[in-house]
Amino acid sequence: SERCARTVRSRPFEIAIVVLIVANGVVLGLETFPHLGTAAGALRWLELSFRVAFVAEIVVRVLAHGRRPQDFFRHGWNIFDFVVTLAIFLPGLHGDPALLRVVRVARVLRLVRFSPGLRTIVAALWRSLPGVAGFLALAVVTLYVYGMAGWLIFADAYPEQYGDIGRSLLTLFVLLSLETLPDLMEQGMALSPWTLLYYVSYVVITVNLLLNILIAVIVNSMEE
Amino acid sequence: SERCARTVRSRPFEIAIVVLIVANGVVLGLETFPHLGTAAGALRWLELSFRVAFVAEIVVRVLAHGRRPQDFFRHGWNIFDFVVTLAIFLPGLHGDPALLRVVRVARVLRLVRFSPGLRTIVAALWRSLPGVAGFLALAVVTLYVYGMAGWLIFADAYPEQYGDIGRSLLTLFVLLSLETLPDLMEQGMALSPWTLLYYVSYVVITVNLLLNILIAVIVNSMEE
Amino acid sequence: SERCARTVRSRPFEIAIVVLIVANGVVLGLETFPHLGTAAGALRWLELSFRVAFVAEIVVRVLAHGRRPQDFFRHGWNIFDFVVTLAIFLPGLHGDPALLRVVRVARVLRLVRFSPGLRTIVAALWRSLPGVAGFLALAVVTLYVYGMAGWLIFADAYPEQYGDIGRSLLTLFVLLSLETLPDLMEQGMALSPWTLLYYVSYVVITVNLLLNILIAVIVNSMEE
Amino acid sequence: SERCARTVRSRPFEIAIVVLIVANGVVLGLETFPHLGTAAGALRWLELSFRVAFVAEIVVRVLAHGRRPQDFFRHGWNIFDFVVTLAIFLPGLHGDPALLRVVRVARVLRLVRFSPGLRTIVAALWRSLPGVAGFLALAVVTLYVYGMAGWLIFADAYPEQYGDIGRSLLTLFVLLSLETLPDLMEQGMALSPWTLLYYVSYVVITVNLLLNILIAVIVNSMEE
Ligand code: NA
Ligand code: NA
Repeated sequence: SERCARTVRSRPFEIAIVVLIVANGVVLGLETFPHLGTAAGALRWLELSFRVAFVAEIVVRVLAHGRRPQDFFRHGWNIFDFVVTLAIFLPGLHGDPALLRVVRVARVLRLVRFSPGLRTIVAALWRSLPGVAGFLALAVVTLYVYGMAGWLIFADAYPEQYGDIGRSLLTLFVLLSLETLPDLMEQGMALSPWTLLYYVSYVVITVNLLLNILIAVIVNSMEE
Repeated sequence: SERCARTVRSRPFEIAIVVLIVANGVVLGLETFPHLGTAAGALRWLELSFRVAFVAEIVVRVLAHGRRPQDFFRHGWNIFDFVVTLAIFLPGLHGDPALLRVVRVARVLRLVRFSPGLRTIVAALWRSLPGVAGFLALAVVTLYVYGMAGWLIFADAYPEQYGDIGRSLLTLFVLLSLETLPDLMEQGMALSPWTLLYYVSYVVITVNLLLNILIAVIVNSMEE
Repeated sequence: SERCARTVRSRPFEIAIVVLIVANGVVLGLETFPHLGTAAGALRWLELSFRVAFVAEIVVRVLAHGRRPQDFFRHGWNIFDFVVTLAIFLPGLHGDPALLRVVRVARVLRLVRFSPGLRTIVAALWRSLPGVAGFLALAVVTLYVYGMAGWLIFADAYPEQYGDIGRSLLTLFVLLSLETLPDLMEQGMALSPWTLLYYVSYVVITVNLLLNILIAVIVNSMEE
Repeated sequence: SERCARTVRSRPFEIAIVVLIVANGVVLGLETFPHLGTAAGALRWLELSFRVAFVAEIVVRVLAHGRRPQDFFRHGWNIFDFVVTLAIFLPGLHGDPALLRVVRVARVLRLVRFSPGLRTIVAALWRSLPGVAGFLALAVVTLYVYGMAGWLIFADAYPEQYGDIGRSLLTLFVLLSLETLPDLMEQGMALSPWTLLYYVSYVVITVNLLLNILIAVIVNSMEE
């Protein structure tokens, strides 16, 4: 147990696990190519090795807690590791190749645990969420109001884009990429030059909003 | 009256109103789908309930001011609520379904009142307007000058894009999204390689201007 | 002369000139529409009035300097006004409608003089030029190197896009808008999957460079 | 030797070399045009002069170090100059016109050495790499996870875009430019409206990630 604890904290142990996780990711990637031939067997064998190795890792980690194995479950990442590693042994899973693959891809996310840099970034992204949420709520209200207006103006002329509130919202979300702006403005001009007001105001307001989200996040992360 | 004042300030009252406003928005959204069948009746009934509920809300809010009901109208949001809620009872409105819908969609904007976060953001956007206005004025002057130049250079060759100052401005506004840059530059090259100067300088100058608007807004909101 | 000096500094004088400049801009815009009919005469008459009014403005401004009219020419904007206003009377100009129009459009730029906000922004843009110039030089070197590499790799397969260094630079400049990325990458893939390295590295490097220009400008304007 | 040292540090020497490097770049550019006729001979002669001039420059620089010529190789840029200038005389190189050209284009990069501004910028870009690397690692993990999910969802329906992990990653990289968003979302909608979740979450997450990279870099360069 004392030896396990020392192993878990050692650099070679960490590097070995990171190498295994990356190899696991590469194997998953190779499996997506259609004509594997004899390589398919090797990949299958590798996957089985990964299962054994990751279970061994969990066992060592639990043993490292000595007489109090329940402490293992006091860290979020340990619980994630446990679920992701053992889920593969649920009998029901093997009838559903897609679900099985999701579990195997989830193992790749364990990489984040081993990089202090990634952990910091993920934590920072997590903390910035509430600050961004207010702006997203405003963006949703803006999209809803423009979606309704778009439906009122264009539903009869362009049912494909504005036939109901769902299509309107989809059209306006894609318009945020400015990709469909030329086509939509031309379409609008064919109906009436007044529709320019609709599109120009939408672009100016949403670009301004997105820009203010950016600023809010910058100012926030500077104050920290 | 004292009881009304306490009700208005209570958390359950606020939550009830927010739920009603969101439900009102959902009903408006559902109404845009073409084949509603029997659901149409239920939606109609819900809309009538919303009218009653929002009027009741206004009545409670006015009563909360006790012997001085006129104080209710001293807050901007109260006036907005009053107008939006009672406009629905104007007889002339029901002959115009589009206007009626505008009034009902306007109710959704009342959401902003109930979220302190949204209120702060809307106020910040409002305050940043004068700072941005100077840059927008410069952007308008730049677009106008390039619009005139575009008309001089391209009016004969490409009347569709540059036939008059209106079309030129429209073409240059859409070009701000960089979406039409490849087509316009190819079109220009067909006329003369010198037109590259026109497009390259336009893109560099306007991107630079937009970038400086961004910076001005960032610097501004940091000084606050 | 004392009266002229007072007039020049008075608010109504400034407002009158701004209104005239804007009206001049509107008239220039209206003239671009093809079928003017009887309005053409009115526009012509308005243009003549503008000429008289702007000359009168210059005369008042010069007289405001009293016994030392040469002081008028000590301000950059005064020289610009003088040249733009009097150039219209050069006899040679009226044989060339395009040049005549350029002179008339140049008058619109005088707007900047009257808005302290615009003057500040133009001055700030001007000051930020040297800071940006270094990055632009680096961008030019980067484009040149990628242009050469693009010519080496693609000249035979796609002469239209990479036939000589001029076309390569044009292709890569337009690619900065990311607009042609999907087509170019597909084209490259048809030649060899290794061309992905070319496009991916180009996009990552130039986006990174543009981003650093942005940061340099932000940091700069904050230090002032 | 003392004279060489003085020459190397003199302004005219620097300007002469910069002019030669730029001229070398222009000659390389002109050579890419297909129909050169008699100019080809002049360009060839100029290239030979550049070789002589750059060798002379190296010789002077080495001599400037007096009795300790080996000190010349203690600066990174000197080594770069030495390799780039002398590589042209490797006999094997002249059988491979592409490689020969790479060596000649590499000379243009020497421009960076002569501009203190460019040197500062290149150094700043270099220093910002480790800070950006963490985010890039996270971006790679995100692309990998979405690539796997895309392969699971779309491999059968759209093998062209999601047939294997390589194509999925390519599709998702290009999607970062938002250029293919409308087409991909329409394609996804044809399969199932649930695929909207895939694309909307991808765009929101990656745009958010890229935005945070931007912020990290800004905050970083401000702390320096
Ligand atoms: Na685009
Ligand atoms: Na685009």
